[in-house]
Amino acid sequence: MQLATCLLPRSESSSSAIEVAVVIDVLRATSVMASALAAGAARIVTCREVAEASELAARWHPNALLCGERGCRPIEGFDLGNSPAEYVSSRVRDKTLVLTTTNGTRAIEAAAGAEQLVTASFLNLSAVVESLAGARSVQLICAGTEGEITAEDVLLAGAIICQCESDYAAELQDDDSTLARELWRSWAATATDGHDQRFPDPTRLARRLRETRGGKNLVRLGYDEDLQRCAVIDAVTAVPQRSWQSPTVFRLKAN
Amino acid sequence: MQLATCLLPRSESSSSAIEVAVVIDVLRATSVMASALAAGAARIVTCREVAEASELAARWHPNALLCGERGCRPIEGFDLGNSPAEYVSSRVRDKTLVLTTTNGTRAIEAAAGAEQLVTASFLNLSAVVESLAGARSVQLICAGTEGEITAEDVLLAGAIICQCESDYAAELQDDDSTLARELWRSWAATATDGHDQRFPDPTRLARRLRETRGGKNLVRLGYDEDLQRCAVIDAVTAVPQRSWQSPTVFRLKAN
Repeated sequence: MQLATCLLPRSESSSSAIEVAVVIDVLRATSVMASALAAGAARIVTCREVAEASELAARWHPNALLCGERGCRPIEGFDLGNSPAEYVSSRVRDKTLVLTTTNGTRAIEAAAGAEQLVTASFLNLSAVVESLAGARSVQLICAGTEGEITAEDVLLAGAIICQCESDYAAELQDDDSTLARELWRSWAATATDGHDQRFPDPTRLARRLRETRGGKNLVRLGYDEDLQRCAVIDAVTAVPQRSWQSPTVFRLKAN
Repeated sequence: MQLATCLLPRSESSSSAIEVAVVIDVLRATSVMASALAAGAARIVTCREVAEASELAARWHPNALLCGERGCRPIEGFDLGNSPAEYVSSRVRDKTLVLTTTNGTRAIEAAAGAEQLVTASFLNLSAVVESLAGARSVQLICAGTEGEITAEDVLLAGAIICQCESDYAAELQDDDSTLARELWRSWAATATDGHDQRFPDPTRLARRLRETRGGKNLVRLGYDEDLQRCAVIDAVTAVPQRSWQSPTVFRLKAN
């Protein structure tokens, strides 16, 4: 498996040669997507603009829930915001969700040329890595925050890389991947006190997320609890996968 | 001291709010610049294009040496290439050098808005850090290789950050800085075998540079020996500093 990483999405998308793109927006778009599909949502339609979301829903998905954020906050007139806590079975089961988020949707668009596209969060880390079995070339795409690198995404990229190296014959293709791996490794080593735990505990990971660009943003706006929610490694097995029929529709990847 | 890092130069230069920009192109532009001024060169005029270099020399600096590379190789008709080994006292003392390199000059241009600009390499690491004493805001700008992040630049950024944290009250302003610091720290810890050495030895650092994007390029083209030359930490005390009179002229920074 050839593994490459973009610490930020690139506008000049070279993703067309990529077999599987893994989009990462830990705080919080891809954590929301994993939570929503795990809670039984039928599909998630992603789009960039707020107006586009309303239009898409009105025209094609009259029973859809409008979901997303601007400046981390819920959007006026929308059904759900961007906190994983909102995506419970009683709200989303069998529903179509139309989701627009600032950084996550942009990263998904940057990965449009890849043959397959899945989204990853700490919530579904191991499931995502399992879903990569047999892939020849994988690109991890960190969404970042407002065009800047944000460490929570890079940490998850590093965790995925470490797990791929241990589970598959993974070869790192670029220095971005090395940076991500070292960021995760050096933090995980201290966070597990050198014990042979597979993963650090959620409280410690949440504490680390408080120090990242994206985490600080959320804390400042009062969303502290979402850091804890997004830090529960392997809470679900749902892997959101882009549909073959439409480049903006995500469904549960079949095992 | 507020410390920020760009893992790649940015076209939308926000460098105007920066007090000191530190441009890093370890392999090899900023290693060449430190070597040249340490060997007694009077000044280095940087420019982007090969034709511009010839024109600048012809018009303003008739006795200048034409220096630089394209695709890592010496430029036809130029006096010196881009290997620090060429920049010896017998060649460069009291001379004006007109230097054009692929990534280094681009990074210098991206930092144009900063109040002060110095260039750093492993060769003059401690001297650069000393020169930052008293600075309120410092931005480290990694040149990268052909628009991609390259780890040798990020490693040096990390080394500078670690030394600033130990010598000054340095506050990291972004996650790029954390990534750089962790990359350096995790590697340096293994490279010094946990001993309390200030720095790893050059042979080990050269070996690490062989694995980076920029290092692999040079090895492929037969410039292995330059990795060893660029890995000698604190070989010189020369700090190239942009002149107040011209944004493209570098001279030895006074102590």
